[in-house]
Amino acid sequence: MTRDQPTAPAVEPTDSKGTITLTPEATLARFREYMVGPSRFMSLLSCFELGIVDRLRETPGLTAVELGEATGAKPDAVEQLLFLMVKEGFVAHDEESGGYRLDALAGVAENDLKRALAYMNLIKVTALRQLFYLTESARTGTIVGLKELYGAEGTLYDAVADHQDLNDAWLKLMNTVTANIDPWFFGNIDIPSGARVLDLAGNTGLGAIHTYRHKPSPGLRVTTFDLPEKEAECLANFRAEGLEEHLSFVGGNVFDEIPKGFDVVLIKHFLDMFDKDDVLRILKGVNKSLEVGGQVNILVPVYPENIKETDNYNVDFFPAFFIGCTMGQGGPQKLSVYQGWLEECGFKVTKAITKNAAEVPPDVIPVQAILSATKVA
Amino acid sequence: MTRDQPTAPAVEPTDSKGTITLTPEATLARFREYMVGPSRFMSLLSCFELGIVDRLRETPGLTAVELGEATGAKPDAVEQLLFLMVKEGFVAHDEESGGYRLDALAGVAENDLKRALAYMNLIKVTALRQLFYLTESARTGTIVGLKELYGAEGTLYDAVADHQDLNDAWLKLMNTVTANIDPWFFGNIDIPSGARVLDLAGNTGLGAIHTYRHKPSPGLRVTTFDLPEKEAECLANFRAEGLEEHLSFVGGNVFDEIPKGFDVVLIKHFLDMFDKDDVLRILKGVNKSLEVGGQVNILVPVYPENIKETDNYNVDFFPAFFIGCTMGQGGPQKLSVYQGWLEECGFKVTKAITKNAAEVPPDVIPVQAILSATKVA
Repeated sequence: MTRDQPTAPAVEPTDSKGTITLTPEATLARFREYMVGPSRFMSLLSCFELGIVDRLRETPGLTAVELGEATGAKPDAVEQLLFLMVKEGFVAHDEESGGYRLDALAGVAENDLKRALAYMNLIKVTALRQLFYLTESARTGTIVGLKELYGAEGTLYDAVADHQDLNDAWLKLMNTVTANIDPWFFGNIDIPSGARVLDLAGNTGLGAIHTYRHKPSPGLRVTTFDLPEKEAECLANFRAEGLEEHLSFVGGNVFDEIPKGFDVVLIKHFLDMFDKDDVLRILKGVNKSLEVGGQVNILVPVYPENIKETDNYNVDFFPAFFIGCTMGQGGPQKLSVYQGWLEECGFKVTKAITKNAAEVPPDVIPVQAILSATKVA
Repeated sequence: MTRDQPTAPAVEPTDSKGTITLTPEATLARFREYMVGPSRFMSLLSCFELGIVDRLRETPGLTAVELGEATGAKPDAVEQLLFLMVKEGFVAHDEESGGYRLDALAGVAENDLKRALAYMNLIKVTALRQLFYLTESARTGTIVGLKELYGAEGTLYDAVADHQDLNDAWLKLMNTVTANIDPWFFGNIDIPSGARVLDLAGNTGLGAIHTYRHKPSPGLRVTTFDLPEKEAECLANFRAEGLEEHLSFVGGNVFDEIPKGFDVVLIKHFLDMFDKDDVLRILKGVNKSLEVGGQVNILVPVYPENIKETDNYNVDFFPAFFIGCTMGQGGPQKLSVYQGWLEECGFKVTKAITKNAAEVPPDVIPVQAILSATKVA
């Protein structure tokens, strides 16, 4: 079998440090890998969207003609799109009968496929077209693609309120991400019994609810802090969970003033949305809001300390995604950079751990980290 | 060094034929490679579009702040986009000085980069956004993306007439492709001295001009056959080359009637645009137009006979490109399929060769083939 398994790129020594440089040939070959990225991505997703994968799961051995009838596409198009699935070994093709059946795809668990498809749909809906405008977005610090495609002026997080397709793709993904990562986050942070907890930029309360469920203690109070327009939905969510006695909402903006009177602040899925100056403003604001000894717990994707590490795909995805598709700025940093910024803002870091790549399903892009820190005098 | 060099995917035996199937883990990991395809592609291209690569070539050692000043982007955005270039080894970063310099990119010849960038620009302008609509294009046989993004009803080849950005991207690429492949094509076909040659769907005459330049002989006449609206520009091109005595234009449609009176018909960059039924109509039309013994020479990209071969990237690109971005149908076939179709249409195949992958620059996607055939009685 000749699986799509690149041979080792040719390399040659270049400098006295012993680092090595790709040859021009290997560099150009790598460019070609990049060039087929968009077409590969949509060919794969389209085979799912057309229902080809589901049909083959139900009825192995269908031909292109039969798949065409079942999915509404011309048999020629079905055959063309399946060439790549066969090349990859995802689908098998019997030359004699003309029939297709799931090959590697047959062995992937339904929940795993569902998670991967939620990511792929997010990338398709919120990134694929928008990335066309990446250069202009980087120059202007705005999401030019959202403006061009949706007439939206703000960030993706503003646009989801007005555009159902963006909202659906985003919510589905965030629910998937949260369900997968919150148990790990809460399993690795300390919330003192009876603490008063503030969930910074806590949106409509899911983080507060998870805090209460994962870290119950007598007298625990969790407050969601976000823009005032989130209040009604947030309180409704608390009531729906029967937690309105323990959870509350405070409206405001993290860049104005962060409310005082809390022992622990949580910052989840948030710091990576901003450039350095804004991250420092947020951390300084949190520091100001806390008493000495107060704690902050951060969940954020991080780049590996050695950026050339290959099992961390944050580098391949997040810069373009944050700059071109969601915020017009931002992107993760190395764990050590966040540590330094916390110290710069008056904290002592007590924990800094990165999730073990072996514990993350292999289709999942974000590699997350937890940073816990205490306000020092 | 930890180059981005995937470890061998884990595999396990599955059936009695001895073929092997990717594990679910390897399959999901491959999905992740696909998911970062669009963001990788635009991150790379954006570093060129922003001028970062050119600035670093002129002045090695520039920091993100200096690059930001030079390119009009915020230093934070420059740093984010360069993380991937450093991961790939395209650019080097000195942690102490904060300076960047070209690493592997420094060694790539200017002409090679220019060619790769012409391809990348084509993919960005004519494919990236349009691919969002691939599924709907496959269902309808129309380029839904061109309609949605440009209000264009026809094919990409129709749309280039009305949209400068599409036209620029397309022409630049086609000139690059033609310049690279025509010497090989004409070096491998036979055109008898003094022959009357028809260049089928010859657009505005470049193929006719190349035929005359590459295969000169006393009495050689080359005729471009294409839609009547191409005539004026085509004849102007012939005059500009001083070849108006030897070259001519006939207006018409390949699906109506192909003009008679020619010894040799050339079909370049054309058959891959159509589904099987239309390819057969074209080949039957050509057969009908020729006398017995008349010849056809075809230049077309082909899939490898073993679709799992890894050094042929046509499979990764063309199905999605033709169905979703250019024609709403079409895509290359295996060389053996084209041979069979030629025989089905009354030809004897006299030559069928695929360009050696080792002779194609490693960034170039299309793997081209030549088929020569003679009309049999």
